[in-house]
Amino acid sequence: MDDVLKFIQRRRSIRQYQKGAEVSEGQVETLLRAAMSAPSAGNQQPWHFIVVRDRAKLEAIMQIHPYAGMLKTASLAVVVCGDLSNESFNRYWAQDCAAATQNLLLAAANSGLGTCWCGVHPRPEREEGFRKLFALPGNIAPFAVIAVGVPAEQKAPADYYDPARIHSETW
Amino acid sequence: MDDVLKFIQRRRSIRQYQKGAEVSEGQVETLLRAAMSAPSAGNQQPWHFIVVRDRAKLEAIMQIHPYAGMLKTASLAVVVCGDLSNESFNRYWAQDCAAATQNLLLAAANSGLGTCWCGVHPRPEREEGFRKLFALPGNIAPFAVIAVGVPAEQKAPADYYDPARIHSETW
Repeated sequence: MDDVLKFIQRRRSIRQYQKGAEVSEGQVETLLRAAMSAPSAGNQQPWHFIVVRDRAKLEAIMQIHPYAGMLKTASLAVVVCGDLSNESFNRYWAQDCAAATQNLLLAAANSGLGTCWCGVHPRPEREEGFRKLFALPGNIAPFAVIAVGVPAEQKAPADYYDPARIHSETW
Repeated sequence: MDDVLKFIQRRRSIRQYQKGAEVSEGQVETLLRAAMSAPSAGNQQPWHFIVVRDRAKLEAIMQIHPYAGMLKTASLAVVVCGDLSNESFNRYWAQDCAAATQNLLLAAANSGLGTCWCGVHPRPEREEGFRKLFALPGNIAPFAVIAVGVPAEQKAPADYYDPARIHSETW
């Protein structure tokens, strides 16, 4: 049980990365493989991932997103998107993408990488900026942008446990 | 890296449980501790959890939710709820609850337990049913119900990796 919590609590939001550090294609593949192992409504797996290493594009993201300044030192960003085409299940697309994102963050933290989840959906001005920057088709919605890099800051495992959030049988 | 994926891919949707099997309070605490270790917008941790063991209440959930039949053999359910009070961050409440839910599922799978995530939000008829059944205050929204039990079915690790979902630099 202790190991289970260690795995999960190792994930912290990291905003300082070793500038220029290499994150290999193999490492990125592991993160995306983890992301795609998430559950989704009707197992429809509505997610897509844009891997961004180009510094000009990372700069452009920082122009759109007011809290993505950590991309300055990140090795790359992953833009998580959802495909809204499936009318039976698309009401759940953001939850599905959130579960995939959480898997990605956990895989990164347990592979020695740092990440920071920056929300895009449901803020229209950010969504519009990402749509244009990445030439997204109409059925594809930007969900979030994840900074990925080699940590240049250390954070202790997080434990936000609060018994006041637990209710028995009813509210 | 292999171990990282093993941890994440061990989670599968389990719908058959050993009827009457004990899931201890300590095990439930570990699951909720994992859930509360998720990231959230502005670190506002908008989640609440109702632990339901009462069979009459579990039956009532099955009356509201058409796809929660696996609760018949589950040891308990966790109803994940979000607190919408914080106007600066409440647009992200469902994503935050999804990340917490994913942590809970991963902790369960790696503790020998099985789970199944049943969506409630954003289906008005299910939300209304849960609101009434659990006497939720107006600022609290039901997000999902998670069945928890000791598995009575085995599933191999999931690997849904699909390179077609990965894009480089742009769509």
